[in-house]
Amino acid sequence: YPNIKRDSRFAKLTPEDVAHFLSICPALSAESDDIEAFNTDWMRKYRGQTRLVLKPKSTAHVSKILGYCNSRSLAVVPQGGNTGLVGGSVPIYDEIVISMNSMNNIRSFDPVSGILICDAGVVLETADNYLAGQGHIFPLDLGAKGSCHVGGNVATNAGGLRLLRYGSLHGTVLGVEAVLPDGTILDDLSALRKNNTGYDLKQLFIGSEGTIGIITAVSIICPPRPNAQNVALFGVNTFENVQEAFVRAKRELGEILSAFELMDDTSQRCVAQVTGKKRPLEGKETKFYVLVETSGSNKEHDDEKLEKFLMALMEDETVADGVLAQDETQARNLWSWREGIPEVLGHWGGVYKYDVSIPLKELYSLVGDVKARLIEHGLLGKDETVVDVVGYGHMGDGNLHLNVPVRSYDRRVEEVLEPFVYEWIQKRKGSISAEHGLGVAKREYVRYSRGETELGIMRGLKNHFDPKGIMNPYKYIKT
Amino acid sequence: YPNIKRDSRFAKLTPEDVAHFLSICPALSAESDDIEAFNTDWMRKYRGQTRLVLKPKSTAHVSKILGYCNSRSLAVVPQGGNTGLVGGSVPIYDEIVISMNSMNNIRSFDPVSGILICDAGVVLETADNYLAGQGHIFPLDLGAKGSCHVGGNVATNAGGLRLLRYGSLHGTVLGVEAVLPDGTILDDLSALRKNNTGYDLKQLFIGSEGTIGIITAVSIICPPRPNAQNVALFGVNTFENVQEAFVRAKRELGEILSAFELMDDTSQRCVAQVTGKKRPLEGKETKFYVLVETSGSNKEHDDEKLEKFLMALMEDETVADGVLAQDETQARNLWSWREGIPEVLGHWGGVYKYDVSIPLKELYSLVGDVKARLIEHGLLGKDETVVDVVGYGHMGDGNLHLNVPVRSYDRRVEEVLEPFVYEWIQKRKGSISAEHGLGVAKREYVRYSRGETELGIMRGLKNHFDPKGIMNPYKYIKT
Repeated sequence: YPNIKRDSRFAKLTPEDVAHFLSICPALSAESDDIEAFNTDWMRKYRGQTRLVLKPKSTAHVSKILGYCNSRSLAVVPQGGNTGLVGGSVPIYDEIVISMNSMNNIRSFDPVSGILICDAGVVLETADNYLAGQGHIFPLDLGAKGSCHVGGNVATNAGGLRLLRYGSLHGTVLGVEAVLPDGTILDDLSALRKNNTGYDLKQLFIGSEGTIGIITAVSIICPPRPNAQNVALFGVNTFENVQEAFVRAKRELGEILSAFELMDDTSQRCVAQVTGKKRPLEGKETKFYVLVETSGSNKEHDDEKLEKFLMALMEDETVADGVLAQDETQARNLWSWREGIPEVLGHWGGVYKYDVSIPLKELYSLVGDVKARLIEHGLLGKDETVVDVVGYGHMGDGNLHLNVPVRSYDRRVEEVLEPFVYEWIQKRKGSISAEHGLGVAKREYVRYSRGETELGIMRGLKNHFDPKGIMNPYKYIKT
Repeated sequence: YPNIKRDSRFAKLTPEDVAHFLSICPALSAESDDIEAFNTDWMRKYRGQTRLVLKPKSTAHVSKILGYCNSRSLAVVPQGGNTGLVGGSVPIYDEIVISMNSMNNIRSFDPVSGILICDAGVVLETADNYLAGQGHIFPLDLGAKGSCHVGGNVATNAGGLRLLRYGSLHGTVLGVEAVLPDGTILDDLSALRKNNTGYDLKQLFIGSEGTIGIITAVSIICPPRPNAQNVALFGVNTFENVQEAFVRAKRELGEILSAFELMDDTSQRCVAQVTGKKRPLEGKETKFYVLVETSGSNKEHDDEKLEKFLMALMEDETVADGVLAQDETQARNLWSWREGIPEVLGHWGGVYKYDVSIPLKELYSLVGDVKARLIEHGLLGKDETVVDVVGYGHMGDGNLHLNVPVRSYDRRVEEVLEPFVYEWIQKRKGSISAEHGLGVAKREYVRYSRGETELGIMRGLKNHFDPKGIMNPYKYIKT
């Protein structure tokens, strides 16, 4: 990290520190254990130099650890499933890793209210499987569910696939238990839907990426698991028609709409080319494809709504083509044309990835503008570095994934893309990080989405909660 | 207010101050105008002594006002529609009232995303009527909608009738524009569903009751207006069966369930007695009544779901009786048996009111325990002070309204009720204020729902944002 220097305020770990930590909870140390997996992320893009990994088994352990670290000015990085994309959960220098792996109990579930209380280290899929047994569903779903932790999801305000239907974690999380930098335990683990008794402290921790405390448990409201699920794929010629289809989906499918995903033709051609699979819509190619999913309590009703919707859109030519999955295998196949995109794009060598929010009207314009700019600079073409420019994402949330697959990483491409993309987003009051967060990757760019006033208030809050700056340093926002 | 003394840190208003304010924006003063309506709430329960009401027309005005007040240590109270129940929006002593009445423009609406941006002073009903014209609905509805302001709703985190369906404002509000005590304008008026770029500052303002700044505008996501609405009323013999019906309503009506309201038999007898209306269910009386509302996109489907649900519940005797509204008039009539309760209970002379959250299992036990206690103390009976003890509320949100109608207000009754009710709530980790907020009425009692650690963190935040304490003093939490 050429732009980041180790903060000299932080103490260096001594054998006495290690002995003290061992008196609190189990630990792994670089001297005797292989701790490489805790020092690097799953993409092996970020790498730290920690010598110590602590594995607290209780909130009391976390409290003792942080109280000690704070008094000694030892910097820490909380680590959940370590599945993030922005380097938020690995050390930069020698920060002590506090792994939440051993705090993985489901504390309680009330089948009447649907409220789940669980430790931060419970794996998302484990929580969802448990809930499935109770006829409920976790109101969040994402690709990394087999490894990511519920606590990490809340700490990073994960978005994912069900946001359109169940809303953001700011609405579904009812409470958190968290340990502040000085070891204070904040017990705001409410199992109530309504509680207007003072500032909603838990909200500050949702999306704070471990910079003001460590979330140790979460209370969350979980809806009943839908009985029926349907998937359809549409081909659409213009982005105006995509918007029209979205408005009508919200109106006509209304309460059963659970996904409205956008994929451009380039993305679908890439998937077909790399996987060799036959494309689901055989008619003429269209510029856009839309995957619509419904989830409801009555299969017959949902079928009827979706069929009627599809017929109406085809009749007035809002969509050019469409197919309805007839069974679960077909549904999974249709989803694979959306979910397969990120992996497929790595096929040529590398991918420049942006995860942005843009007001819907202009959501797709970014792709065209970036493409034109790369052509103008002679970087996109048959034998050029850039393979193509691809746009897809959670249309229903205004969240575009702009991906630029390349034959090799190239500084010239980077310079054409940045800060162009960020400035483009800034002009439209979009967000340079829709759901992936800031971590170490985006802290330099947050100013494109937040004004100096906002950043000043954020710095003030960080300093208020963590005056010694020991919590997940070098990340999030510059202090 | 015998327990509250005027804070001597605050300056007293001078003619020079008034002249300065008049150079910023229109104002009403006690010398030349009738400002009684700004000094007291609609119930005439709380009364202040302000001499000055400021009517800013823009965010810049609010910024200039607060900047000056802060430098002069002049205390202020922000006032929206002044429809609150806890005295949060009227002065206690001579705080300057900042009325948001003149900031009432709808700034923008995007029919594709459903995102509305409007000034804080827009009346809720005005916003909802505007949205109705666009085929959308405001995700919040409450009795005071004809007067309350959108800004006040957000500042108090209003709950109301649609929370079960659309979730809390923490999920639906996408951004706020607010002015901090020193006049700084926080522009966090995002029109994005996803934005993970730093602490979610707007969340702190939602439910902060004007204690850390004044909300001047709001960005909120508004769902499509449902095409179909159905209402049914059930008679249920036991609270266990009420819970069973609730679980099944969530499962079988699922995504179309929009209200699940509980009324006890006492409440319904009171409504019948005072209004003289014929009760909707003619069969034998049951201990509980439940009003179920559905809102969906397809009338036929909804009818079928609700009928099937009602039949199944009656067949296995989960409910003892039930009726389905056949048209809008009948639907309104059924709702009147729920919505009429608060007014009817005032019939005998007075009402002690509590607005509490309780984990669902024990939601109704409070009513029996309070009743037993009042009988034990000889206060409830044919000719005694207390008429009866009534429980009703938003079952779907775990929110009970405990009402104790009395023939006259009586200190003995108060002493039997308090702190008993608050201690009862505390033991069950409930909330002493589910949706009405703290204001001046509850600030003494917040400790029954929040621990000293939480309160300490809240005080720290208040002091961080408002070091001079000028924002809505004497309320919310003691500093």
